[in-house]
Amino acid sequence: MTSHRRQLANAIRALAMDAVQKANSGHPGMPMGMADIAEVLWNDHLKHNPGNPLWADRDRFVVSNGHGSMLLYALLHLTGYPLTMDDIKSFRQLGSHTAGHPEHDTHLGIETTTGPLGQGLANAVGMALAEKMLAAKFNRPGHEIVDHHTWVFLGDGCLMEGVSHEACSLAGTLKLGKLIAFYDDNGISIDGEVHGWFTDDTPKRFEAYGWHVVPNVDGHDPQAIETAIRAAKSVKDRPSMICCKTIIGFGSPNKQGTEATHGAALGADEVAATRKHIGWTSDAFVIPEDIRAGWDARNRGTKAEGTWNDKFKAYSGQFPDLAAEFTRRMKGDLPANWSDVARNYIAQVAQQASGSLATRQSSQQTLNAYGPAVPELFGGSADLTGSNNTNRKDSKAITGADASGNYLHYGVREFGMAAIMNGVALHGGEIPYGGTFLVFSDYARNGMRMSALMKQRVIYVMTHDSIGLGEDGPTHQPVEHVPSLRIIPNMTVWRPCDTLETAVAWADAIERRNGPTTLALTRQALPAQARTPAQIEAVRRGGYILKDCEGTPEAILIATGSEVGLAMDAAQALQQKGRRVRVVSMPSTNVFDAQDAAYREQVLPRAVDKRVAIEAAAPETWWRYVGPSGAIVAMHSFGASGVGKDLFKHFGFTTDNIVATVEQVLK
Amino acid sequence: MTSHRRQLANAIRALAMDAVQKANSGHPGMPMGMADIAEVLWNDHLKHNPGNPLWADRDRFVVSNGHGSMLLYALLHLTGYPLTMDDIKSFRQLGSHTAGHPEHDTHLGIETTTGPLGQGLANAVGMALAEKMLAAKFNRPGHEIVDHHTWVFLGDGCLMEGVSHEACSLAGTLKLGKLIAFYDDNGISIDGEVHGWFTDDTPKRFEAYGWHVVPNVDGHDPQAIETAIRAAKSVKDRPSMICCKTIIGFGSPNKQGTEATHGAALGADEVAATRKHIGWTSDAFVIPEDIRAGWDARNRGTKAEGTWNDKFKAYSGQFPDLAAEFTRRMKGDLPANWSDVARNYIAQVAQQASGSLATRQSSQQTLNAYGPAVPELFGGSADLTGSNNTNRKDSKAITGADASGNYLHYGVREFGMAAIMNGVALHGGEIPYGGTFLVFSDYARNGMRMSALMKQRVIYVMTHDSIGLGEDGPTHQPVEHVPSLRIIPNMTVWRPCDTLETAVAWADAIERRNGPTTLALTRQALPAQARTPAQIEAVRRGGYILKDCEGTPEAILIATGSEVGLAMDAAQALQQKGRRVRVVSMPSTNVFDAQDAAYREQVLPRAVDKRVAIEAAAPETWWRYVGPSGAIVAMHSFGASGVGKDLFKHFGFTTDNIVATVEQVLK
Repeated sequence: MTSHRRQLANAIRALAMDAVQKANSGHPGMPMGMADIAEVLWNDHLKHNPGNPLWADRDRFVVSNGHGSMLLYALLHLTGYPLTMDDIKSFRQLGSHTAGHPEHDTHLGIETTTGPLGQGLANAVGMALAEKMLAAKFNRPGHEIVDHHTWVFLGDGCLMEGVSHEACSLAGTLKLGKLIAFYDDNGISIDGEVHGWFTDDTPKRFEAYGWHVVPNVDGHDPQAIETAIRAAKSVKDRPSMICCKTIIGFGSPNKQGTEATHGAALGADEVAATRKHIGWTSDAFVIPEDIRAGWDARNRGTKAEGTWNDKFKAYSGQFPDLAAEFTRRMKGDLPANWSDVARNYIAQVAQQASGSLATRQSSQQTLNAYGPAVPELFGGSADLTGSNNTNRKDSKAITGADASGNYLHYGVREFGMAAIMNGVALHGGEIPYGGTFLVFSDYARNGMRMSALMKQRVIYVMTHDSIGLGEDGPTHQPVEHVPSLRIIPNMTVWRPCDTLETAVAWADAIERRNGPTTLALTRQALPAQARTPAQIEAVRRGGYILKDCEGTPEAILIATGSEVGLAMDAAQALQQKGRRVRVVSMPSTNVFDAQDAAYREQVLPRAVDKRVAIEAAAPETWWRYVGPSGAIVAMHSFGASGVGKDLFKHFGFTTDNIVATVEQVLK
Repeated sequence: MTSHRRQLANAIRALAMDAVQKANSGHPGMPMGMADIAEVLWNDHLKHNPGNPLWADRDRFVVSNGHGSMLLYALLHLTGYPLTMDDIKSFRQLGSHTAGHPEHDTHLGIETTTGPLGQGLANAVGMALAEKMLAAKFNRPGHEIVDHHTWVFLGDGCLMEGVSHEACSLAGTLKLGKLIAFYDDNGISIDGEVHGWFTDDTPKRFEAYGWHVVPNVDGHDPQAIETAIRAAKSVKDRPSMICCKTIIGFGSPNKQGTEATHGAALGADEVAATRKHIGWTSDAFVIPEDIRAGWDARNRGTKAEGTWNDKFKAYSGQFPDLAAEFTRRMKGDLPANWSDVARNYIAQVAQQASGSLATRQSSQQTLNAYGPAVPELFGGSADLTGSNNTNRKDSKAITGADASGNYLHYGVREFGMAAIMNGVALHGGEIPYGGTFLVFSDYARNGMRMSALMKQRVIYVMTHDSIGLGEDGPTHQPVEHVPSLRIIPNMTVWRPCDTLETAVAWADAIERRNGPTTLALTRQALPAQARTPAQIEAVRRGGYILKDCEGTPEAILIATGSEVGLAMDAAQALQQKGRRVRVVSMPSTNVFDAQDAAYREQVLPRAVDKRVAIEAAAPETWWRYVGPSGAIVAMHSFGASGVGKDLFKHFGFTTDNIVATVEQVLK
């Protein structure tokens, strides 16, 4: 006789195997294996309201082993989120809400996009961190308005990935006690039984990180799962890892426990056999009423949220400013005076334009100006604070004992930083920015891609942006990075040429609600450029005329960042030779490309096809702007170790070479 | 009274602080902190011959904390490698042999390029793995011709990086007993004292990986270091981690133990104070004769290599074929019959050209054809063997107990795989190839960059190369990856359109001794194209005319991989409409760009400026070829979850859309 709990879990199994079978594509093994764990967690512990997936203090639930997406869809459907049976039936079809891997959609209860292994776990660390930070800032004695758990499911793959090390090591240091992870220890990955390539003592590993570990839990025994969850909740000063022994594809009589259930439909015969084996008598996509009732969480959810609403009302009464600020920040709105702050600072920078400054320092000045006005600006660096200049006067470090700060020393963990920032942004209430050397964007690259895919406001402060960094040599000198980041869909890259462009770039990044921004900043000093008010306004358009000539230009120089000064010098020299030359500063090709055609034509008139782009990076993204009649002064190899100025000369970034290139183009 | 050993170590300290001071750039802290460890290791244990850095059975020594490059340069100089005092004096200057971070140069004794943290450690895992594999294949009872250690120095930064987890977890599983690591546990990273962001119990962590750990070694006590090394050498079935407590910048009276010594010159005053403090009376760049004599390893090295040469002579006598094979493989030469094997297989494929096959399957067929002839082809996959089709008929898995195989299940560890493959290639004797989904090249990206920077023959088998993979959705669908990889300097990317191009791409990759290759392969079937013998020859040139028209073409279609078939269909349709259209298949832009101008002009005549490129990826790398009069059918956003064919249609990769685009261009 199958227990009621088991039957509830079997509803997940049935939906998973049937949806995968119908799509003839997908991963039934994980949902069938983790169904019992999910049943206990969702029915007895998860704090959520299917009627309002946006409730600020809901628990966050993440499926880091995202190929098990049908587990999540089944849970959302069964508990009453607006995810219909038709959605389940169109699993993995173009345009459906039930993509192959979960795609972030807060309105449906999908907290994050997962699939790239390990990152969901790191997102969960970020969510738990955001919760702890917001609790430290907003809660008051007797008023715990921020008080929720973050739960994460993960598999062997997540634990093999390096990002799990980075994120979990830091989670231990930060004592994220409300983070509770469930390890689906089923002994199987795609290549087969994991003992051939994964022999970690995982409990010991997580104890080494300072986690509370609950080992050897039978992941198919609701009582054992319940006991483990209670133990995890009772430990408040450390994250918890519940290690669950499970059988992948549990219930499939001929395939369970093997990789055959991992990534393919079971097949019609085995689906039928499984039905029989687990005692599930309903047709595909039919859920019996008692099972549906057992899952429906809408009433419980409304009640739970109601309780919180009462709490928040009391809080609002006593702390109206704090309550308004909390509401604003969770909405993602900027402070009312933000536009003034930005405008005034930019105007001030414009007035003071003189001398030279590295744009990493310009960035720090900007942070000092904007930071106090935008308290949700949550900074950090992957152990390069003094090099990235990511700290500001009002920075206060977050520690395991005190999360009331606004700055995180991520340690040497670039990928972890990116994925944690994604989690923080997804949680809401903070705008994360984090720094490393631009070359190490490589380490973080898929995390940056996920920021772009999920349209999250995450700001990457990438300094030491070219060979200009000098002696550290080619391992540290970006060449392909600026162009490579530009071509990630929905990533905005800015490479400012001076303090003013840096201030504008930061403003754009802070205001960009629907995507991440990368700021590529120099180690070395760059001269401030003079601008008219119209030019200052035009910086926001990503590309603009910084220096023009009388009449129609013979040639246009297009440059970014550290090469703008060189382009200006070259234009000066060409002018003295009687040439009519325009200089376009193009701090963001992405933003410029989004301008209307008339503006773009005004800056880069089609008729002027003699164009030279100058950027100390790989040339590929410039062909679009210079065309076959133009030329690009660029990097065509890795850099070298040497003094920055020597390298600029060696690789052709000199006024003379630019002048010669323009003259060649004009021949 | 300073001991002789300490004075030997102080020679490293003096060279490090003086070279950094002269360059006014660099990292004195690590060399000064690890000098005593290095002294014991190099003087009493390291098997090497400064007179022949190419000796096949030398120990490998890796500085994973590569910012401490002056430690390595000092050791190489002092023991007698051809690295002169003038080289040391020109530390970090353009053109010198003493770059800011060590740059791979076997002739100087620099085994790998390090600096990007964690990767040197993973390279060392690869080197130790190569040693174990070659020993299993070539050694015979009484003839241990492959029998050396791999030693690696590493710091907190390496241990924080995720790649350390991936590589070390696998090293434990593989029981790499001759890998011995020294952890420079100095408690300091760039942001300050690490306890704020790094609180791992590192010995426990490595025990969880199955390593032998020697904890709590005083890194400034030669006897303690000696004892630890002996313990490590005695444990042969597990890698060893020696945890050394050290003081960063040891010897600097006012700065040691602080981050101030990490990444900047000590300053003239502190250099003088350090001299006094450690009792080093020589001028900068002067080494007293007795100290030089204490370090000189040339005689010892000649003797050690002589002993091995005798061993190898005996081995050659008994096993001449094996000895010749070992010599060939360590040289990196291909088998004598290789050219015939490749030519014959390609001819056979050309004859059989018909039907459709996914290029990932074409790749597997190629591996089955080439593999038996090139036994050094060492395969693997990051847990996607059945998806990447990286296994071949003669594949045999390597395990901890038996390293005689030629295939490694890397587990879900893309970055670790890349960095381990770099180590295997650097060691010599194997040509590593490894697979994952193309989108997860992101995870491995800096490892791939390091393959390119170090000019290593590493082959990346990247399958599921576009939205064509279908249902797994945008997290798994590459968009920016093919173009992003193309622009890494010295990376060759091939995206073949059928079985024949795949066979040629593999041949090119195997023959490419001075750099890595990425093969971008489809999940879905692609039609075989018919070719003349001249066209078959031309595939090697990276781009060639696959279909031409009578007279001068009005338009040229340029396509790669899965879009070549579409371009051919579109050309057919346009021809029927009376258009003169050429189709260029461009499997490798990198290889095509390297052809002479005459050939390129022949394929893409300047006069024909109506060009349409078709590739299911971000368009940026195509502007160079199509120019402003052309157009690109490309991806301008992330993909979506759905059936592959539906996605191709949805995103405009249809014959109709290509025809319409060409007609638009021709208007």
